[in-house]
Amino acid sequence: MTADAAAGETAGKPAPAGPSRRSLIGWGGAGLALGAAAAGGTAAALRTGGDASPAALTGDAVPFHGAHQAGIATAVQDRLHFAAFDVTTTDRDALIKVLREWTAAAARMTAGHEVGEGATGGLDELPPDDTGEALGLKPSRLTLTFGVGPGLFEKDGKDRFGLRDRRPKALVDLPAFPGDNLDAARSGGDLCVQACADDPQVAVHAIRNLARIGMGKVAIRWSQLGFGKTSSTTPDAQTPRNMMGFKDGTRNVSGTDTAALDKHVWVGEKDGPAWMTGGSYVVARRIRMHIETWDRTSLKEQEDIFGRDKAEGAPVGKTRERDEPNLKALLPDSHVRLAHPDSNNGATILRRGYSFTDGTDGLGRLDAGLFFLAYQRDVRDAFIPLQSKLARNDALNEYIQHVGSAVFAVPPGVRDKDDWWGKALFA
Amino acid sequence: MTADAAAGETAGKPAPAGPSRRSLIGWGGAGLALGAAAAGGTAAALRTGGDASPAALTGDAVPFHGAHQAGIATAVQDRLHFAAFDVTTTDRDALIKVLREWTAAAARMTAGHEVGEGATGGLDELPPDDTGEALGLKPSRLTLTFGVGPGLFEKDGKDRFGLRDRRPKALVDLPAFPGDNLDAARSGGDLCVQACADDPQVAVHAIRNLARIGMGKVAIRWSQLGFGKTSSTTPDAQTPRNMMGFKDGTRNVSGTDTAALDKHVWVGEKDGPAWMTGGSYVVARRIRMHIETWDRTSLKEQEDIFGRDKAEGAPVGKTRERDEPNLKALLPDSHVRLAHPDSNNGATILRRGYSFTDGTDGLGRLDAGLFFLAYQRDVRDAFIPLQSKLARNDALNEYIQHVGSAVFAVPPGVRDKDDWWGKALFA
Repeated sequence: MTADAAAGETAGKPAPAGPSRRSLIGWGGAGLALGAAAAGGTAAALRTGGDASPAALTGDAVPFHGAHQAGIATAVQDRLHFAAFDVTTTDRDALIKVLREWTAAAARMTAGHEVGEGATGGLDELPPDDTGEALGLKPSRLTLTFGVGPGLFEKDGKDRFGLRDRRPKALVDLPAFPGDNLDAARSGGDLCVQACADDPQVAVHAIRNLARIGMGKVAIRWSQLGFGKTSSTTPDAQTPRNMMGFKDGTRNVSGTDTAALDKHVWVGEKDGPAWMTGGSYVVARRIRMHIETWDRTSLKEQEDIFGRDKAEGAPVGKTRERDEPNLKALLPDSHVRLAHPDSNNGATILRRGYSFTDGTDGLGRLDAGLFFLAYQRDVRDAFIPLQSKLARNDALNEYIQHVGSAVFAVPPGVRDKDDWWGKALFA
Repeated sequence: MTADAAAGETAGKPAPAGPSRRSLIGWGGAGLALGAAAAGGTAAALRTGGDASPAALTGDAVPFHGAHQAGIATAVQDRLHFAAFDVTTTDRDALIKVLREWTAAAARMTAGHEVGEGATGGLDELPPDDTGEALGLKPSRLTLTFGVGPGLFEKDGKDRFGLRDRRPKALVDLPAFPGDNLDAARSGGDLCVQACADDPQVAVHAIRNLARIGMGKVAIRWSQLGFGKTSSTTPDAQTPRNMMGFKDGTRNVSGTDTAALDKHVWVGEKDGPAWMTGGSYVVARRIRMHIETWDRTSLKEQEDIFGRDKAEGAPVGKTRERDEPNLKALLPDSHVRLAHPDSNNGATILRRGYSFTDGTDGLGRLDAGLFFLAYQRDVRDAFIPLQSKLARNDALNEYIQHVGSAVFAVPPGVRDKDDWWGKALFA
């Protein structure tokens, strides 16, 4: 079965042979004109029905197929919608069907196409295959990155899907860290999908349509919108500022440094299991910042805590953001000194977090902070030792609290139209 | 006292005579280069300390001073952060001081400058005047629109600030509408600030810094982020899609149609009170959409409910979005027919709403919908009769629920540096 056929079958309809007639007639003209204007004169692909093959990629689409999943080493987009799912079915084949349909839909949406026959294709008497709010929008560099949590392999002592023996040793349950105040409703999950795009409507649309495809078999456990990226995988760009007003995560793994990616991010052949080769592990932490308290702190104290100056982001005693810090010149409990690889036997993570503001907390304070996302080859050598040290010592802890937590194994990329998210795991 | 002086005094420091040295040295160079690139080659103003006079406006800044507040008739930006505040002080002079400082800070931030001496200006031993997360970002068409709620004039029978007699007759408490399921924690407020910008970090930064300035005198009651605009005040543009995948609000008041604005949006001299001449009234409604149910509805039913086709947005029997609907061809309970001015004695509102998604609701459903914002000359002739009819009859009601509500009087624009938000009200 091809990817398009899988998508077409979602609603029990035959797959379209080509671009949806209704999409083309209703939207092709007006939509294209709008898209060209929005892109500043550059022709850009717009969300329509039709072929999602790589050859059809145009405009600001990020390729979906490849050795690694997009959304890790690829350039960080502006917006995030991250969703964790509980698997509610007990039927292995039903779960596999969802994953196949998800993969087909993801290939289409990242290419800038609608799901299946689209929001206005197909038969009027049936629910549309696509919810439609992204009709006419550009691909917006959408990436969809899929992961599986510990609960997929074993929950309450039960081997739910015959996968217990396939659980990677590196997919450990995270330990409790000092200061954690985790909300179970914002933690964990059997599956995750990270949607990143430059247009939030495109990221939200993607998660919503995956949730819809999975209805009755999987359910969203929690989701998080991020409005401002706080990291960069393109080291020539400025590091964006977090909600504390600082550039944090300057020393990030570059998305083009294949040696560093192989060393710190991608799971190698010898690491095992085989189905994870070329994959990675992601840790998600919802970190609430007590910004009202932070904002009453003096500039000097803020800079001491980070170990960087606020304006340029330069380490103490240096002049430019990317100057190598002299760790001994920093206070022992400063964030940069504690988190630096030289303080942690070289432990290195690829950060891909986003700022969030989710209204108020009932006490007149903004519920704001950092949705921390870190990719790594093995959490036991990276996030866990790093966070163990930070949770005990970081001067920042007075101003932050970890309120959500999850860890997922992120399989390698989907190779081609016959491959799907988790195929090697379930093989 | 000038606006700049007011901002400078916020933290008890003298106002700067000119651009902050630290801002210029630390950021001027790198920031400008970044900004020019981000603007696609157009030079753009970046957030720095310094002069916020209109002459200093460059790049994508929207003028703050004028006969009307910006953020109503001006072109709709991509993102929203709307905040409602409770006034917690009982001291009229303290409240006035906040409003003066807010106005000064708003003038600076909308021009692309930091508050006061900025995040890195001033004395290292004091908290910075600005929280800093927007340092280096463009003005991003930021507008800040200020309003006052019924509770400012009278609360629990008390005339809190000697303003009871100044309450506009048009600032009525909204009646309860059929189907309302209002959450008090997401409703009401003594003051509001609508922050719209193309960059959400700029909108969030603005609300946060106003909350900080008001600390101890005002407190955020609720706030709402919106990620996708659902309306347009520039009628040549496509109407954006809401979370139901439809173009809604096609027949909006154009921001350049001064006759329509005078008739439907701006408070006239004869309307009274005098302090509201040139102002408007805004109704905010948080409308939850049951999108999972909607997504299971057939395309035909969806189109019948709206009275438009989904792809183009054309009224039933017509071919283009902006074709005049033949109301009699629409089902009696269709949204377009019920909401059309011809069905409502000409009642017309200027819509400026945004889509929202605030994670999940604990039942695996996305907490998503429309944050409806409507400006009008008198809510008694516009929103109230419109919503009374819609709440009783609209076929859409099966798929939506109003869960938050507020109404505010929005004074006219700030005229010059000696004027401030509410000056005429408190005069």
